[in-house]
Amino acid sequence: MQHRVAAIGGDGIGPEIVAAGKEVIDSAGERYGFDIAWTDFDIGADRYLATGELLTEEDIAELSKFNAIYFGAIGDDRVKPGILEKGILLAIRFHFDQFVNLRPIKLLDGVATPLANKRPEDIDFVVVRENTEDFYVGIGSRFAGKREKKTLDVVRDIYSVRFGLDVETDAEELAYQIGVVTREGAERAIRYAFDLAERREKKVTSVDKANVLSDVYGLWRDVFTDVAAGYPDVATEFNFVDAVTMWFVKNPEWFDVVVTPNMFGDIITDLGAMIQGGLGLAPGGNINPKGTSMFEPIHGSAPKYRGQDVANPLATVWAGSMLLDHLGEHEAAAAVLAAIERSILDGYVTRDMGGAKKTSEVGRYLASLVKTV
Amino acid sequence: MQHRVAAIGGDGIGPEIVAAGKEVIDSAGERYGFDIAWTDFDIGADRYLATGELLTEEDIAELSKFNAIYFGAIGDDRVKPGILEKGILLAIRFHFDQFVNLRPIKLLDGVATPLANKRPEDIDFVVVRENTEDFYVGIGSRFAGKREKKTLDVVRDIYSVRFGLDVETDAEELAYQIGVVTREGAERAIRYAFDLAERREKKVTSVDKANVLSDVYGLWRDVFTDVAAGYPDVATEFNFVDAVTMWFVKNPEWFDVVVTPNMFGDIITDLGAMIQGGLGLAPGGNINPKGTSMFEPIHGSAPKYRGQDVANPLATVWAGSMLLDHLGEHEAAAAVLAAIERSILDGYVTRDMGGAKKTSEVGRYLASLVKTV
Ligand SMILES: CC(C)[C@H](C(=O)O)[C@@H](O)C(=O)O
Ligand SMILES: CC(C)[C@H](C(=O)O)[C@@H](O)C(=O)O
Repeated sequence: MQHRVAAIGGDGIGPEIVAAGKEVIDSAGERYGFDIAWTDFDIGADRYLATGELLTEEDIAELSKFNAIYFGAIGDDRVKPGILEKGILLAIRFHFDQFVNLRPIKLLDGVATPLANKRPEDIDFVVVRENTEDFYVGIGSRFAGKREKKTLDVVRDIYSVRFGLDVETDAEELAYQIGVVTREGAERAIRYAFDLAERREKKVTSVDKANVLSDVYGLWRDVFTDVAAGYPDVATEFNFVDAVTMWFVKNPEWFDVVVTPNMFGDIITDLGAMIQGGLGLAPGGNINPKGTSMFEPIHGSAPKYRGQDVANPLATVWAGSMLLDHLGEHEAAAAVLAAIERSILDGYVTRDMGGAKKTSEVGRYLASLVKTV
Repeated sequence: MQHRVAAIGGDGIGPEIVAAGKEVIDSAGERYGFDIAWTDFDIGADRYLATGELLTEEDIAELSKFNAIYFGAIGDDRVKPGILEKGILLAIRFHFDQFVNLRPIKLLDGVATPLANKRPEDIDFVVVRENTEDFYVGIGSRFAGKREKKTLDVVRDIYSVRFGLDVETDAEELAYQIGVVTREGAERAIRYAFDLAERREKKVTSVDKANVLSDVYGLWRDVFTDVAAGYPDVATEFNFVDAVTMWFVKNPEWFDVVVTPNMFGDIITDLGAMIQGGLGLAPGGNINPKGTSMFEPIHGSAPKYRGQDVANPLATVWAGSMLLDHLGEHEAAAAVLAAIERSILDGYVTRDMGGAKKTSEVGRYLASLVKTV
């Protein structure tokens, strides 16, 4: 059996951690009888700085031939924040309509959590983040003075609703940003969460702020309620996003599957990463079940460690396990996760986890463990 | 010296905790030589259910005669989420232009935090939440089908930017929500944060998501940079909101003053409440330095404990300490906080904090402590 997978190392430590991940996946393939044909893509800050290209039409055409992308990290000190994130990472998520961002929040054996008195059995849930709508659609504008007719219309609306006055604002400088939720968009993410809950503990928590952002999240709640009706054996609850950050810290054992719109998903999955031991241990999948999905560590590119062989590859290797699951190689996926757990218990880890091993050493160790665990 | 203060007990446990708070404040007044003339307002769910009134013109006219409001809580099981919050709490914040929501995050001696290895000296910072703009302006719409011309224009914009196509969406049902940031609005909150930092550890952290919501938070960052130039002795940093939730949990000792737009402020102040021991210990001030300010516990109305004399009054009493600070009664404010700390060390607390005392008993105890601490 052969699988074709695209690989984007990206910036900073990206290429090193992806190299480690590939080695582990290839080794799992030897044990479980499959073979990965990797195709490397040169996408990231270096190319952008040399050519001005972020994600080209050609990149998209080529990437669309794969059903999985293995992604390292992007971000570079020489480029203004937002350019690479929006031009590459978000562009891939949107172009390939990767409508679910899947984030396991799981405290592995032997990992330290910053929470007092919580153990692995207390921290084991999954966040399904809607990944194509909400405030991530990139619609907004910013202006100074009273130049832009269209902007002024929006502003006038805002001020008339807010102050009950139909007058022009006298704000000298103003920006607005629009979020959008569609029934279709919310529904497919929420349905994904319920299907997942059916295979887990049968509980789904919706996270929103429908008491204040009532238009977008009012629709979200209605869709949630409609989808839930089709899963009578799944327990449901609504949480406000502010409250949920408290419960993640105080009672993570309450959660099974959490589903949430894009922006709140961004926030609570980072909090989730921290309670499971930090960014060094947090993978994510960007899923389009019928198209091209992408698997990545959720941490950044840590430019200052580039080329030093010191970065922790575990989040990337774990993302590799998710990638294998996506390819249907479930046994191999489980073996990769078991190898990660074994290496942690053995103390065979990088500096950030209190060890003394190099990125490449951890990769090699995991590649050998995965043959026997 | 006499101060006139408005009091709104509100719903659920609100009236009981405000009664306890008044008793403590009055007692501090006896010691420090001032007197509070309280005026009670009947605003909340009961009146709404009886008359349909939320915050009336008359309420506003009367409240505007005070420069401080002592607020309990609103929220009731018989009313749909959002109605009372928007119609009363947010309406007061907006009407009186209370542009700063001030939230001390401080772990008191003797209080248990859910974080491992953190002590009172590690958790002591303040969040300045901008309180009148951002996604709280309440502008949005929701529609099914293709009925509303104006909405469709917005939708068309969204889709043309997102997909590079100038076509109508075929989404059957859609909602959008607009956030707005003005230079003026951002500036006054950010300036408040810098002034506060001058009197503390001289460090301000801005929390935003300028790499994705670049219009509103790009403006926010520019304003922050401009204001910072006027405070050369204050250290500054930018954090993304997703990352900051991690650092609140992992390294709360890094923070001194945190300033952030409204919606992210809502989220991170609840997380802050949890690390300082939970909602039972989290007060907030809604500040307009030249108008009517409002002080409240940040927890809700807990309708099921209404009238049972079991609610923890400490957050409300602490809000009373903030109110006294606002009135210029700084010694009395400090004494109230010291009394809270003393009662906790004495174990004279309500059930939720592991004690056995009633709301009214804790109030009476604090009222006596405040005379001597
Ligand atoms: C880098 C950034 C654009 C991205 C996001 O906000 O989605 C990241 O924080 C994530 O969660 O994957
Ligand atoms: C009740 C709700 C509208 C309010 C808010 O979102 O601001 C609350 O969460 C708060 O933080 O004071």
